[in-house]
Amino acid sequence: MTTSATAEARAFRAMHHGRDAETPLVLPGPWDAGSARAFVDAGFPALATPSAGIAASLGFQDGRTPTEEMFAAVARIVRAVEVPVSADLESGYGLDAKELVERLLETGAVGCNLEDSDALTKQLTDPREQADRLAAVRAEAGDSLVINARIDVFARGAFAQGGPEDAERAAEAAIERGRAYAAAGVDCVYPIFAPPELLPRLATAVGVPVNAAAFAPDGPSPAELGRLGATRVTFGPRLFLATMAAARDLAGQLGPAPSTP
Amino acid sequence: MTTSATAEARAFRAMHHGRDAETPLVLPGPWDAGSARAFVDAGFPALATPSAGIAASLGFQDGRTPTEEMFAAVARIVRAVEVPVSADLESGYGLDAKELVERLLETGAVGCNLEDSDALTKQLTDPREQADRLAAVRAEAGDSLVINARIDVFARGAFAQGGPEDAERAAEAAIERGRAYAAAGVDCVYPIFAPPELLPRLATAVGVPVNAAAFAPDGPSPAELGRLGATRVTFGPRLFLATMAAARDLAGQLGPAPSTP
Repeated sequence: MTTSATAEARAFRAMHHGRDAETPLVLPGPWDAGSARAFVDAGFPALATPSAGIAASLGFQDGRTPTEEMFAAVARIVRAVEVPVSADLESGYGLDAKELVERLLETGAVGCNLEDSDALTKQLTDPREQADRLAAVRAEAGDSLVINARIDVFARGAFAQGGPEDAERAAEAAIERGRAYAAAGVDCVYPIFAPPELLPRLATAVGVPVNAAAFAPDGPSPAELGRLGATRVTFGPRLFLATMAAARDLAGQLGPAPSTP
Repeated sequence: MTTSATAEARAFRAMHHGRDAETPLVLPGPWDAGSARAFVDAGFPALATPSAGIAASLGFQDGRTPTEEMFAAVARIVRAVEVPVSADLESGYGLDAKELVERLLETGAVGCNLEDSDALTKQLTDPREQADRLAAVRAEAGDSLVINARIDVFARGAFAQGGPEDAERAAEAAIERGRAYAAAGVDCVYPIFAPPELLPRLATAVGVPVNAAAFAPDGPSPAELGRLGATRVTFGPRLFLATMAAARDLAGQLGPAPSTP
């Protein structure tokens, strides 16, 4: 890691602290250099890539982007903008902590998401194993990466599948995982798909900044999520999907109506 | 080349013939797999990549996309959709005809644009040299590629620079080039930035289908360009730029207003 990379990571980390609850850190999710520039043009001071958006931009199903292509896409995004970029690294592509950190720092990114489930098998990772992994990533990265630890109990497992684990047990599992990951040294936790009404309890119990998702335009706004306790708000592939819908509509307006000969 | 590739090229070629003047072949220009899917969702039966859009999506200036990255981007777009895709290959990346055709067919594309100027030096290629090159590409490709020969006299050279060559001399130069390229076996010519009022004369004089650009939303519509003699209408990076403007606006609506801490 270089000194300037560490300084940029520190600046990005600082954006997670001392915020007013009404103005959480809102991070649009670029999928290529063009969208990254568009979001910086819109005034955002940092970006966080969504793996699903990058996958779709490259023509892969989410979770199936080859490792090389994901790191290359992140590097293109970082190269296109002057602001800090955090990268969604899914569950880490089977890389050990040392290689994961090296590869990520080579892209110029200053942060990452790491999931505690497997996107393909849909299985949750054992929380102690995940905490050990996050601690290893922290040890490798020092303060050169802002680590956002995803907590997938609301996305995978019994609660997500409508199984016997009720919301209370999912909340308890999320808090247990969040505390373990915080103790492992992460900067932020991201209980994806957590019901918004649980955010105040999660934020209080875990003790590090919480990333909340605003996937749906008709769901809680970033400001509402901020009031509930979210420090950081991301959007998954929402902006990719909305932008591609706009592309479809723009093309549909070209006229004359498409017709095969 | 495979039989199925040739059949798809023939189908794409057939879209350039027998059309009503009101309904030219309208080809949106995708820059990634996501936009390609969006344009197919909008109902278009074929696509034509813009080099400028792909460059910007990858974070390069137009004309500076590395050869490997351009072919890889084209391959990702082809892989994402079921419709024929033509690729803007700029001036051919210094590849000889054999390698150019092999590399393009490997992507699965069934057509290409080739320019008769150098994007970096802005110099026009000698028309006989370009005709020889196009004939070599045709000889290598057989009927497995729909070749769209760009005629850059309105974009480069004295006319484009407001020099002493007036519109009449530019039109004569375009017709000379178009006839030479048609004799070399191309399927279509593309006098980029030709004044629309010249299209009827160019279409009549050249004798193969003419591709017209509709770069500006407030310029002639595809139907108007069709009535003037264009068989095929493309948009350069217009859809990329409009879509990225939409992305910027969508991000700007996320709220709360971006603020650095």
